[in-house]
Amino acid sequence: MTLPSATGASDRALIDATVGRIAAFDAEAAAAAQRALDGKTKPRGSLGRLEELACRLAGIRGSATIEALEPAIVVCAADHGIVAEDVSAYPQEVTGQMLHNFAGGGAAICVLARQAGARLVVADFGVRRPVGVAGILDRRVRAGTANAAHGPAMTTAELDRAVAGGIELAESLVGDGIGIVALGEMGIGNTTAASALTAALLRADPDGLCGPGTGLDDAGVARKRAAVWRALEANCVSPLDPLGAVAGVGGLEMAALVGVVLGCAASRTPVLVDGFITAAAALAAVCVDTRCADALIASHLSPEPGHRLILSALGQEPLLDLGMRLGEGSGAALALPIVAAAVAILTEMASFEDAGVTDAGA
Amino acid sequence: MTLPSATGASDRALIDATVGRIAAFDAEAAAAAQRALDGKTKPRGSLGRLEELACRLAGIRGSATIEALEPAIVVCAADHGIVAEDVSAYPQEVTGQMLHNFAGGGAAICVLARQAGARLVVADFGVRRPVGVAGILDRRVRAGTANAAHGPAMTTAELDRAVAGGIELAESLVGDGIGIVALGEMGIGNTTAASALTAALLRADPDGLCGPGTGLDDAGVARKRAAVWRALEANCVSPLDPLGAVAGVGGLEMAALVGVVLGCAASRTPVLVDGFITAAAALAAVCVDTRCADALIASHLSPEPGHRLILSALGQEPLLDLGMRLGEGSGAALALPIVAAAVAILTEMASFEDAGVTDAGA
Repeated sequence: MTLPSATGASDRALIDATVGRIAAFDAEAAAAAQRALDGKTKPRGSLGRLEELACRLAGIRGSATIEALEPAIVVCAADHGIVAEDVSAYPQEVTGQMLHNFAGGGAAICVLARQAGARLVVADFGVRRPVGVAGILDRRVRAGTANAAHGPAMTTAELDRAVAGGIELAESLVGDGIGIVALGEMGIGNTTAASALTAALLRADPDGLCGPGTGLDDAGVARKRAAVWRALEANCVSPLDPLGAVAGVGGLEMAALVGVVLGCAASRTPVLVDGFITAAAALAAVCVDTRCADALIASHLSPEPGHRLILSALGQEPLLDLGMRLGEGSGAALALPIVAAAVAILTEMASFEDAGVTDAGA
Repeated sequence: MTLPSATGASDRALIDATVGRIAAFDAEAAAAAQRALDGKTKPRGSLGRLEELACRLAGIRGSATIEALEPAIVVCAADHGIVAEDVSAYPQEVTGQMLHNFAGGGAAICVLARQAGARLVVADFGVRRPVGVAGILDRRVRAGTANAAHGPAMTTAELDRAVAGGIELAESLVGDGIGIVALGEMGIGNTTAASALTAALLRADPDGLCGPGTGLDDAGVARKRAAVWRALEANCVSPLDPLGAVAGVGGLEMAALVGVVLGCAASRTPVLVDGFITAAAALAAVCVDTRCADALIASHLSPEPGHRLILSALGQEPLLDLGMRLGEGSGAALALPIVAAAVAILTEMASFEDAGVTDAGA
């Protein structure tokens, strides 16, 4: 096991400073964007949620005039000690194998990132064995979590390092001109950890939360439920200490994603949430600071029961509902063109006046 | 009023020949595509409807190995005599004004076509006054339909000319390398005509069909219902004579779109249906030959009540549900990147074997 980082105090200072910088939603910018849309050559409101999305982006960015948002997909990867409870259809080595696949460009998220014209960033926050392959960022905190069914998945210092690593990742992307960040993840066993985290943060019944993940049968789902119950019993978790809950029953990639959300929210950068695991991380970030909720956009709805529960709690309506349950950021990647279209409608459409088209009014 | 074309007989011959060439869905190609997807590095079926879509495209194209489909958006425009019944929130001249806006690049569909990397083709099949602007194809059959509340909207020869014009349009695009066609339309008053056509083809109650279109108030919807009832009483329409129903109560742009669907179905080219008006035209094409249904992909669901009715009748589940009710092809344009993603998943993703990833099986 990796020892807690010696820089624990500065990690916590970065987290606190980032939370302190989180910007409020700019309702005036959103309203100004809606006024601009109302003057465009179309019946008022006729582009439905595309208009809502454009206004939401304006409110997040803090400006009614937004430009095309350069997208990045951030895939945080880690392994999970809780796989010892036999809760995944896949063996643990698949996490590392998939990092090789990400690096090689053959995974679904690679294909979908290319389609969306998005930069794909994959970071190892604690896969069991280092993959040592070019194109994967080494942000390793420890070699996978401990089994949460027997105690904390990670120490507080490790948690802080992973969250701070996520913040640093977000800051570096934003500094590099990225305007929207889509969340992704990879980690065999992580729907179990996300179920435990969600149960802790929403005080929800784990039995209703746990689903088949990437392909468990009924017996597997029963084992997953039992593992989640054990993790909740073995750790003192509460929505009042969301980062403590991540350390107790979550995962290193979720901790990192909390940091990515905090970093984006602090720099007025919209965050596209993918499926259940990234939603659980986003929920933890919102529990840290509720203003994070304003920076989130729900890309899609997965069939995993906990996902809908989180989106309801966050007041989010997903853009897509295509029965996707792969993770990696695949649903968020698929929603990126819709976000780009919303921005383009706001920036490129002609007004009634410009185009000489008769306006029927409201 | 324009006289019936002298080429009536050859138009009908083109229509009949095209219907004769409509290809059957290739279930074997679709099954082979699913087998290929099952070997890709992801849990089986985990990309949900994206996988279904890829298989459907393979079945339409008649090959398990499909390449990126070059997209075109075909916007057919025409005016409607039924606007005399005061059924639109917008004056009739807006149809022509919007053609200028299409040509100028400022309309929603122009923006969304650019975003999707799609060729935008706008054809005037009978706007009241010729717009005479570069970039709009002149396929005028007559200067708007007659008021269907008092008799047929167009003659049989005019109908044939519009349908044949749509077929010619589809053939020219396919010949030019286009691999998928998204349907769009423009025509003030056309939700009224589409409501009458849908009521005729589905033998449905017009009162349940009629909605606010692009922005009618309750009194306007009541006038629309009355106009639809009058059109159905003034014309002998039946699902057994779908083209006769289009001539009686439909519109020139709908007749043209029927032709586009027939032409695409005859050349194994998938057709993305947009909102209510294009769905009514697609329904008419399916009534002409049920095999057309296999070539259709429903892009989105509009709030117009008749749209859901048609999609149910066609057994189609829309890809998007974003409350869009603009028409022009806007919903279909927004779905194009999802179609492109489905193709890319099939063509670009690595298999378990290629990537050295452990497969957990079914």
